[in-house]
Amino acid sequence: MVMKSSEAALATTPDATGFGRFFLPGPTEVRPEVLSAQMRAMIGHRGADIKALMEKLQVGLKDVFRTERLVFLSSSSATGLMEAAARNGVRRKALSLVNGAFSQRFAQIVEACSLESERYEVPWGEVHDPQVVRDRLGKGGIDAITVVHSETSTGALNPIEEISRVAHEFDDVVILVDSVTGVAGAELWSDRWQLDFVLTGSQKALALPPGLAFAVASERMMARSRAARNKGIYFDLLQFQKSQEQMQTPNTPALSVMYALDVQLERITAETLEGRWERHRAMREATVKWVEEMRADKGVGLSVLAPKGFRSPTVTAVRMPERSSSVPVVAALKKAGIVIGGGYGKLKELTFRIGHMGDHTVAELEAVLDALEEVLTA
Amino acid sequence: MVMKSSEAALATTPDATGFGRFFLPGPTEVRPEVLSAQMRAMIGHRGADIKALMEKLQVGLKDVFRTERLVFLSSSSATGLMEAAARNGVRRKALSLVNGAFSQRFAQIVEACSLESERYEVPWGEVHDPQVVRDRLGKGGIDAITVVHSETSTGALNPIEEISRVAHEFDDVVILVDSVTGVAGAELWSDRWQLDFVLTGSQKALALPPGLAFAVASERMMARSRAARNKGIYFDLLQFQKSQEQMQTPNTPALSVMYALDVQLERITAETLEGRWERHRAMREATVKWVEEMRADKGVGLSVLAPKGFRSPTVTAVRMPERSSSVPVVAALKKAGIVIGGGYGKLKELTFRIGHMGDHTVAELEAVLDALEEVLTA
Repeated sequence: MVMKSSEAALATTPDATGFGRFFLPGPTEVRPEVLSAQMRAMIGHRGADIKALMEKLQVGLKDVFRTERLVFLSSSSATGLMEAAARNGVRRKALSLVNGAFSQRFAQIVEACSLESERYEVPWGEVHDPQVVRDRLGKGGIDAITVVHSETSTGALNPIEEISRVAHEFDDVVILVDSVTGVAGAELWSDRWQLDFVLTGSQKALALPPGLAFAVASERMMARSRAARNKGIYFDLLQFQKSQEQMQTPNTPALSVMYALDVQLERITAETLEGRWERHRAMREATVKWVEEMRADKGVGLSVLAPKGFRSPTVTAVRMPERSSSVPVVAALKKAGIVIGGGYGKLKELTFRIGHMGDHTVAELEAVLDALEEVLTA
Repeated sequence: MVMKSSEAALATTPDATGFGRFFLPGPTEVRPEVLSAQMRAMIGHRGADIKALMEKLQVGLKDVFRTERLVFLSSSSATGLMEAAARNGVRRKALSLVNGAFSQRFAQIVEACSLESERYEVPWGEVHDPQVVRDRLGKGGIDAITVVHSETSTGALNPIEEISRVAHEFDDVVILVDSVTGVAGAELWSDRWQLDFVLTGSQKALALPPGLAFAVASERMMARSRAARNKGIYFDLLQFQKSQEQMQTPNTPALSVMYALDVQLERITAETLEGRWERHRAMREATVKWVEEMRADKGVGLSVLAPKGFRSPTVTAVRMPERSSSVPVVAALKKAGIVIGGGYGKLKELTFRIGHMGDHTVAELEAVLDALEEVLTA
């Protein structure tokens, strides 16, 4: 079944490698040369081989996160590291900034770890106002902020730098950032922005197979972890720190994905991270321009869900014309061999989502937009 | 660096595919045709494609676990599911059966989750006496047993069926089984033996790349999970149950490893699980016979650490002659292009370990034993 769908994709792809028709907001399409790295043989996870690999990966990962600190590798999805954020970082009560499905989930994870979460909620698609955060923190009782950088369910990009600056006005508030569809696609500076914890997954803008998640923790966060009770061991940041200082992982790591990461980091170095950010911005602009043209020139009343200035460079949620559902649009496109995302949760029919992230180019994206136009004007 | 070591392995392998010289007790060597499955393209983790894949995998996994229940797929190492065992299964206090490094770790995981663990400890290499377990349970205060089926650090095989029978003499005691180097190599019947929770990882006797872990939970275990507080979400068994009933996973799964599993389950079906158990038993017997011959005929005072009748079919820890260290032996073998495991933890110098598990054959194992003999008699 799977082989069949992969063969079908190959049959309709615009280039010889079969790349360029899979625009889900994750998992993203993985380039053949990155997939092939997974053919490497297994190695022990305690010897010299893993040390050499880990050392090499750290160089590239530090660049991607713009940090001087260790980048933790977790053999889990990013959700696991959201749980790590809660268990290690929240002392008693978090202020959870909710503006979509994943930021809502972050709040729920805090609660599932027997910790408190107070929500600052704005409508799905919008972003958070740093001043409102400041006012709430000023009242006391909050020791952490959970926030999503790029809301995959809406395409909204939160002003993380500003929110972090507000958090740092208070001695005892850490900022925990889900940058799952941010890191490696959207501009982000872990150290410069003083993010206490920032996490992502392998299968988003890094364009790797799923199976690994990555995070950077500040010294404040590590102090929280040292004091935390009830962390378990799998998501205990002290375990990551201890093992990775010796260039190992606390548990047997997802080796195949690490091999793929090795090749992908070389590709990212060649492109430069700034170049990668710029390519993602260009894909966002191409999408926005197309939506505007559809509206102005083709009479199809589409609009971009997220407000101008706060749109993610990796994913765009496009609002359908009134009384139209996105479901048949996504289905028709799939029949044509092109995969995009439907709306998420309560936005399922109201929007469709284009994951213009990872290794895609503006040219590949434009072929998808052309096909979308054909479906929408048919 | 990694490519180099993989090329080095290829240069010294006994067959054209490069297979047959990597005998760590995990990660185990992965056959080229299984590695290649990872070349399949990504698919969405919420659509029809994943459903078809999950349904197919369940058929094979149920056979491997000998269960009629759902087999949970966790994108983590097996350690993650040990934490799931503790968080979902232990109400207040576990009796932890400790006879090596991993059973000790199981006890530590229980404690790291803010639960109690009382240890029934025997010397490393030995196994547990069901009567002692019965006596302790009779005194009350215990609601769960943690036990390791095949102790990877010692090669000891615990009498799980008997220990489970004892657990079931008590209404309110669940048995939580780490069968990390058991499942798919050592005989195990999840349903028939009434195991409440049994877990393994992909990179052991299943001979897949690391990145996935698997478990089966009994109805008693699911009832525990429903009542448990502070489970978080990543290792909440109710989340697994809910998603997998719809043939999805709660979080983005490690797709590449699932593709490899798909191919591997076909291979296991072709061999039959009973055939696989038999092949592993034959590898254990060949190892034991070799140790005895080394002792009787070659004057090298080796011995098998685990007692007769309680030896794992997947891993053998061989005790070195008195006043000899295993470290140079393992190193010399590695120079010859063959990888075996050193001793684990406090047995580091006293033993070496042969991981005769996964897809290896007696013939490949015998080549390794010949090389070992050469080193030991040099």
